[in-house]
Amino acid sequence: MTYCLGILLKEGLVVAADSRTNAGVDYISTFRKLTVFEKPGDRVMVMACAGNLATTQAVISIVGERLGERKGEESLFRTRSMFNAARIVGATLREVIRETGEGVTEAGGDPTASIILGGQIKGRPPRLFMIYAAGNFIEATRETPFLQIGENKYGKPILDRTIDFDMPMARAVTAALLSFDSTMRSNLSVGPPIDLVTVLDGDQKVDRHAVIDSEDPYFRKLRTRYGQGIMALFDRMPDPDMDVWPNGK
Amino acid sequence: MTYCLGILLKEGLVVAADSRTNAGVDYISTFRKLTVFEKPGDRVMVMACAGNLATTQAVISIVGERLGERKGEESLFRTRSMFNAARIVGATLREVIRETGEGVTEAGGDPTASIILGGQIKGRPPRLFMIYAAGNFIEATRETPFLQIGENKYGKPILDRTIDFDMPMARAVTAALLSFDSTMRSNLSVGPPIDLVTVLDGDQKVDRHAVIDSEDPYFRKLRTRYGQGIMALFDRMPDPDMDVWPNGK
Repeated sequence: MTYCLGILLKEGLVVAADSRTNAGVDYISTFRKLTVFEKPGDRVMVMACAGNLATTQAVISIVGERLGERKGEESLFRTRSMFNAARIVGATLREVIRETGEGVTEAGGDPTASIILGGQIKGRPPRLFMIYAAGNFIEATRETPFLQIGENKYGKPILDRTIDFDMPMARAVTAALLSFDSTMRSNLSVGPPIDLVTVLDGDQKVDRHAVIDSEDPYFRKLRTRYGQGIMALFDRMPDPDMDVWPNGK
Repeated sequence: MTYCLGILLKEGLVVAADSRTNAGVDYISTFRKLTVFEKPGDRVMVMACAGNLATTQAVISIVGERLGERKGEESLFRTRSMFNAARIVGATLREVIRETGEGVTEAGGDPTASIILGGQIKGRPPRLFMIYAAGNFIEATRETPFLQIGENKYGKPILDRTIDFDMPMARAVTAALLSFDSTMRSNLSVGPPIDLVTVLDGDQKVDRHAVIDSEDPYFRKLRTRYGQGIMALFDRMPDPDMDVWPNGK
């Protein structure tokens, strides 16, 4: 299983992914699910992938090979907008699934995948998209500033409570790591290290790229303090006065 | 969508369900998803249902009609063990799906359902089961004391952190309501009122049956205080020292 998260902020972007993959029952491995394409100063694009690993690796390879094309089709390095970048990735995703999907389905697999794409092209604002297997996509907004793919539900409540477009980047990183913590506690097939990239608005390059494993001092401190804090908070919650509720008989 | 939760405790049982049903896109209604069969002092059984409403209502009706049978097949009121009660409910669930499933599937619906069954028969310990559409089931244990069906993921992290077989009943009710709060915040199709039943070990009857709507004073207080507590806890979390993470370029 996979969990990927993108957050659109006034200050820029946060994109994070776990790196555990299970292809087959007893074959759990670590793979990078986060890929960066950048021309520092001109453009940066970060992709996080969930779903069929063969599909997403093929998409990354094809999109990467096409970067160098000088004529003809648009590429991520030539397009003028992040919207077009999302269309390119979506079309490539659809192309790969169309090509290999039947064979994978016949073998009892699921060829589908979804992709988070965040980035910025010089002179334009940062944008963040979630691209579906069908090739279509939705975009994060000021009102709905985060997007999730894969095993997304365990880590959503903490984001619903804390994420805000105007919050500082460092706070958003903290919230993202707490969301991964909740997910990893509830689904052991989502696992560290967490690949996390930040992009600052106007830089058009990766600001920080952290690979955070379970021994990372900050992540350990955060998990411990938050866990203890939740227990302390729970202990402070008032007991229900069950006598006001009707007795069964 | 539906969310149902059962908790097995040293002190007894908690079973809770929301009561919002969506049959069709614009037809969201309130239905009881929690049903009690009891002979106070002799036995009590609480069922919470998720999935196809026609299926689960049929199961409840059939199981209820068979209560009165004096000879032949076992019924919930005649069986000597909760394990057998789970087999009866599981067999009935399978029977209903076998009978109507084809028609429902042809119409583009999903006939399946799952059921939480908790209860106690005199002289035996309380037991708690989760019954699948196939009719088979798993049982809660001291180590895994809670079971969830339906929209279960949003509300699982708080249970993973707090639920313990030895905790007092009132604390388990608090944790259950926080789990519903998280679920209802993240999925609006899970909605109040929450039907909640408690059973005390050795009583063989419902102790409390609360119907908790969003105006319930305790639930309101709990939601507000917990929400504020989470925000305050988040604010107390240390910022990451992002300078220790490698710079992109």
